[in-house]
Amino acid sequence: MSPKRIYNFNAGPAALPRSVLEQIQSEFLDFKGSGMSITEISHRSKWFEEVLNDAVARTKRLLNLDDRYKVLFLQGGASLQFAMVPMNFLSDGRTADYVNTGTWSTKAIKEAKLLGKNIKVAASSEDRNFAYIPKNIRFTPGATYVHITSNNTIKGTQWADFPDTGTVPLIADMSSDMFSRPFDAGRFGLIYAGAQKNMGPAGVCLVIVREDLLKLVPETLPTMLRYIIHVENNSMYNTPPCFSVYTAQLVLKWLDETIGGLDKMARINQAKGDLIYRMIDDSGFYRGTADADSRSLMNITFRLPSEELEKKFIAEAQGNDMGGLKGHRSVGGCRASIYNATDLKAVQTLVDFMKQFESQNG
Amino acid sequence: MSPKRIYNFNAGPAALPRSVLEQIQSEFLDFKGSGMSITEISHRSKWFEEVLNDAVARTKRLLNLDDRYKVLFLQGGASLQFAMVPMNFLSDGRTADYVNTGTWSTKAIKEAKLLGKNIKVAASSEDRNFAYIPKNIRFTPGATYVHITSNNTIKGTQWADFPDTGTVPLIADMSSDMFSRPFDAGRFGLIYAGAQKNMGPAGVCLVIVREDLLKLVPETLPTMLRYIIHVENNSMYNTPPCFSVYTAQLVLKWLDETIGGLDKMARINQAKGDLIYRMIDDSGFYRGTADADSRSLMNITFRLPSEELEKKFIAEAQGNDMGGLKGHRSVGGCRASIYNATDLKAVQTLVDFMKQFESQNG
Repeated sequence: MSPKRIYNFNAGPAALPRSVLEQIQSEFLDFKGSGMSITEISHRSKWFEEVLNDAVARTKRLLNLDDRYKVLFLQGGASLQFAMVPMNFLSDGRTADYVNTGTWSTKAIKEAKLLGKNIKVAASSEDRNFAYIPKNIRFTPGATYVHITSNNTIKGTQWADFPDTGTVPLIADMSSDMFSRPFDAGRFGLIYAGAQKNMGPAGVCLVIVREDLLKLVPETLPTMLRYIIHVENNSMYNTPPCFSVYTAQLVLKWLDETIGGLDKMARINQAKGDLIYRMIDDSGFYRGTADADSRSLMNITFRLPSEELEKKFIAEAQGNDMGGLKGHRSVGGCRASIYNATDLKAVQTLVDFMKQFESQNG
Repeated sequence: MSPKRIYNFNAGPAALPRSVLEQIQSEFLDFKGSGMSITEISHRSKWFEEVLNDAVARTKRLLNLDDRYKVLFLQGGASLQFAMVPMNFLSDGRTADYVNTGTWSTKAIKEAKLLGKNIKVAASSEDRNFAYIPKNIRFTPGATYVHITSNNTIKGTQWADFPDTGTVPLIADMSSDMFSRPFDAGRFGLIYAGAQKNMGPAGVCLVIVREDLLKLVPETLPTMLRYIIHVENNSMYNTPPCFSVYTAQLVLKWLDETIGGLDKMARINQAKGDLIYRMIDDSGFYRGTADADSRSLMNITFRLPSEELEKKFIAEAQGNDMGGLKGHRSVGGCRASIYNATDLKAVQTLVDFMKQFESQNG
């Protein structure tokens, strides 16, 4: 019997490519002839080392990373990175700029301040409920880094272009749009991304760090929080989250070989976003919540004329096998998360449903 | 076609119950009729909350925990706990005792010292290469806790009974023998265990903390490292490692319902250990490395008359579908890890092979 599958618009954990899920399922009791499940093999075995090294190699290739960049797969999610970034890079009176574009930026800022670090909020879009990405920001000369959140899952905004910070390296939380489009990684000192949106299951966080920043890492930090430890041990200082790394590796392989890389992925994502935004813009019924020039191609946030209609919309969508359309509990409304693994067919199905719902309720 | 399966004597990640693996496989594309994989559902959904709450409830029942104990599923493994324990509990001039019984205790001690904490090594078995568990230890009166490693995977030793520390709470790294036997949890202030031996896949660490210790947690720690944050958020301060928690929940259910609890599990583990140790003791060929009264029922470490024979033994065992018998790279020799999911049949198969190998090479 074929398994029941819905159209999954979850904000994260989120949809994964079906071919990846099927491969995991098919080899789950015997990984590559080892006679063991991927969950049962030693992380020091040749089987797992191949998985890890392939995930690293594909990350480097997909992003065109040069040899200065080290690719890590760590635990603790983006939330632990909120602390690790300032702990590793902001000792000795150093300062950093943060741009506040929503809930996750706010958390990153709060964490740096909690740790007593000297940081400055160089720009914020809080004045209009984070509905836009700030422009023409004046950054602090000599700052150690500028921290941004590349895509904001809750408010539905995304940096279309990254800000010019001169020689100051960018550090970005890319949890929700990593691998959704090509970009110039050479401007970044560090990039982190919890896997559970575009890259895999929860439980692993991709960290890409430029080696010149490693000289800033103090020796007095907890060992597990020092980037240099994980670089020196190729993410194997302790037992890594093997299953999550393995799933991420299969997703990266899918992106690389089946989709054909980030240029192609970006074109598909643009087409998906255009389909929904055009329908919203043509409608007097649905209303996007983000400024047009700051719209996210990953998380499309919108409102209906009333909260009652929003409830009805979400319930009817669920009844039509479309899940995850409820907005974040902190803002309400509706949200369609359309990460890499949510394909054009799913988006077309949603758009057709939205039109039908409007015609019946508008 | 039936998948190839070997007898898995890995030290960790290690064997999981086949019924658990088969259940994961069968529901991998559609979890409980959700139309999504367990890797694709929101951690805030009713599906995942049921998984998490069941894992917590079974942990409490299996260990007879009273309401003072909070059960957490965290990231970062035991290695992060090495730092979190002293960071959370040793501010304000407090002190703690540590017992050094091998590699992992040594790491826990090193981490507390690195963080500038005032700790004392109350006892150590380093004088005889950690081949035994220290006895008649004099602990420091008024210490905040006594830290032990309940089972030592590399040296093959295990505390048969836990030391009497009076009113000072024990804190134990139980990564490698958690849920292998019943014990009086009421003597412990905190227990932690990386899942990847007796409990599930890598990527999640069980932490059980007694609530009176939470008042010691400083507010200035990184948020993700504060136990109280995870207690207040039922392990959902940020996205938990959902797949690893789910697998652990199925293993706990298997232990609870299929095995029938910790008394029964302990009897099976005793029988497994007895089978191998008796054969070793009756042999002039194999030699156990741990003192008889300190032997581990989880990791059975032994030597053969020469390193050449050890190599041959490991290779022939592999050829007979028995994997993971190589000793840890830091000590050499052989090691059979026989955690909960390695059944009596696997152990009997190993013992038969060991006898045959001795008769051909002894």
